[in-house]
Amino acid sequence: MIVTIIGVGLIGGSLALSLKQQGLATRIIGVDQNPAHLQKALALGLIDEAAPDLAAAVQPADLVVAAVPVDGLLTLLPRVLDVLTERQIVIDAGSTKAALLTAVAGHPRRGRLVAVHPMAGTEYSGPEAAVPDLFAGRTLVICDAAGSDPDALQQVETLFRQLPMRLVYLDAAEHDVHTAYVSHISHITSFALALTVLEKEKEEQRIFDLASGGFASTVRLAKSSPAMWVPIFRQNRLNVLDVLDEHLHQLQRMRELLAQEDYAAFAQLIEQANHIRRIIK
Amino acid sequence: MIVTIIGVGLIGGSLALSLKQQGLATRIIGVDQNPAHLQKALALGLIDEAAPDLAAAVQPADLVVAAVPVDGLLTLLPRVLDVLTERQIVIDAGSTKAALLTAVAGHPRRGRLVAVHPMAGTEYSGPEAAVPDLFAGRTLVICDAAGSDPDALQQVETLFRQLPMRLVYLDAAEHDVHTAYVSHISHITSFALALTVLEKEKEEQRIFDLASGGFASTVRLAKSSPAMWVPIFRQNRLNVLDVLDEHLHQLQRMRELLAQEDYAAFAQLIEQANHIRRIIK
Repeated sequence: MIVTIIGVGLIGGSLALSLKQQGLATRIIGVDQNPAHLQKALALGLIDEAAPDLAAAVQPADLVVAAVPVDGLLTLLPRVLDVLTERQIVIDAGSTKAALLTAVAGHPRRGRLVAVHPMAGTEYSGPEAAVPDLFAGRTLVICDAAGSDPDALQQVETLFRQLPMRLVYLDAAEHDVHTAYVSHISHITSFALALTVLEKEKEEQRIFDLASGGFASTVRLAKSSPAMWVPIFRQNRLNVLDVLDEHLHQLQRMRELLAQEDYAAFAQLIEQANHIRRIIK
Repeated sequence: MIVTIIGVGLIGGSLALSLKQQGLATRIIGVDQNPAHLQKALALGLIDEAAPDLAAAVQPADLVVAAVPVDGLLTLLPRVLDVLTERQIVIDAGSTKAALLTAVAGHPRRGRLVAVHPMAGTEYSGPEAAVPDLFAGRTLVICDAAGSDPDALQQVETLFRQLPMRLVYLDAAEHDVHTAYVSHISHITSFALALTVLEKEKEEQRIFDLASGGFASTVRLAKSSPAMWVPIFRQNRLNVLDVLDEHLHQLQRMRELLAQEDYAAFAQLIEQANHIRRIIK
């Protein structure tokens, strides 16, 4: 299978490596708005060849992977569908789905799109961030599967099961609600935690000296790129605001109990929070 | 060297394993209020023998390690100092220092105490949580070192350098301010994040399906024990409230920018947060 990757960064590059490693792609073509990224992807062996433009990249592909920030997907995906034959398949790897699937609704080639979200990533970006084992054992959400042609859906399911990934099916609106809870809010809290510590702790050497694994773990997502994340927050704004308001409420509750020195109630909140042990290993 | 560990949990048990592994302890005696923990520590090989009571545990020791929750330390350490000879040394591993060092100030044996805080831990607790490599390469804060007898200080420094740990010196008040920034607030945000997600996301299967590494990383500290953490928040209440108020302010700023759809300013905040890259690898 010939695979074209549009956007050879963390996700596109890692998928290229996985597909090669599993023997699922015979040839991988890359295309990227950023010429330096494209050359880097070639040098790193993420892709076999660099295409000069979108049309040249898409034309020979059996599978096209659109792995650019979610604002870019809104204009990119209709353009890809415009030139796609009824044999080719395109997937996007966007972290938000409602706006995207609205943007392609009614497109004559909508059926060739399978909208997927691999629930995997790191706080790094660009081709250098690509790693071959990013997806193995993780969940792939397939959104609005009924909108995809059955043959396209089945090929994509077969492909990702071999990485291997676990498939979960959601409609786009559900997807955007759930990812606000279990992914987007984590980034907000991590950005805010980094800002808090950088604001309060002017002696950076002290942060470096004292930061334990716990701090590093809660703050690592704060290294994430604004180019990727601002469009996600923009497209999922209402869900993120809803979860953020709940989070502010929970923090205010903890704050008030601590201010009032109600340690029994404070301990109860911690015990409730401990229930996350049932879910996150 | 004969070492007595009071409190054979995550920290005491891990230190016992490290000292044994590095050949720094010839015999390790354990004592614990919880008989089941003491038997478990013996069965796991964390300690060589279980002492029946505090006096029997302390008497033969060259070094006593007090590794119990910080509320317990306030009464335990004066009792240990009461029975300590002028040859023996005691260290505590408490995460807060100001209240503790006030509690032992003026004690005739104060000089035998070296107040240390190993900046290492996990979200687990009890003897089963002990691991031998918890401290290697991490920072050990030594607090109010001038209050310790020079020979005691020097022996403790030599011991921890061999684990190996990097030594940092702070006074107790500074220590409590800095740990509020780089450790205690991370736990508050993680507890609140767990409460948020458990409150908003009633379908636990969905959390399990969709939670990525990023969510697991920001929420893992929410598994931490209230028995350990409530006393820390209690003793460091004013510093924690101060940092928590700054954190609420940063979250509110992000919330307002998102509500107002000021994405340029939102991106600037993320870029500021990205500066944490300079400090946390």
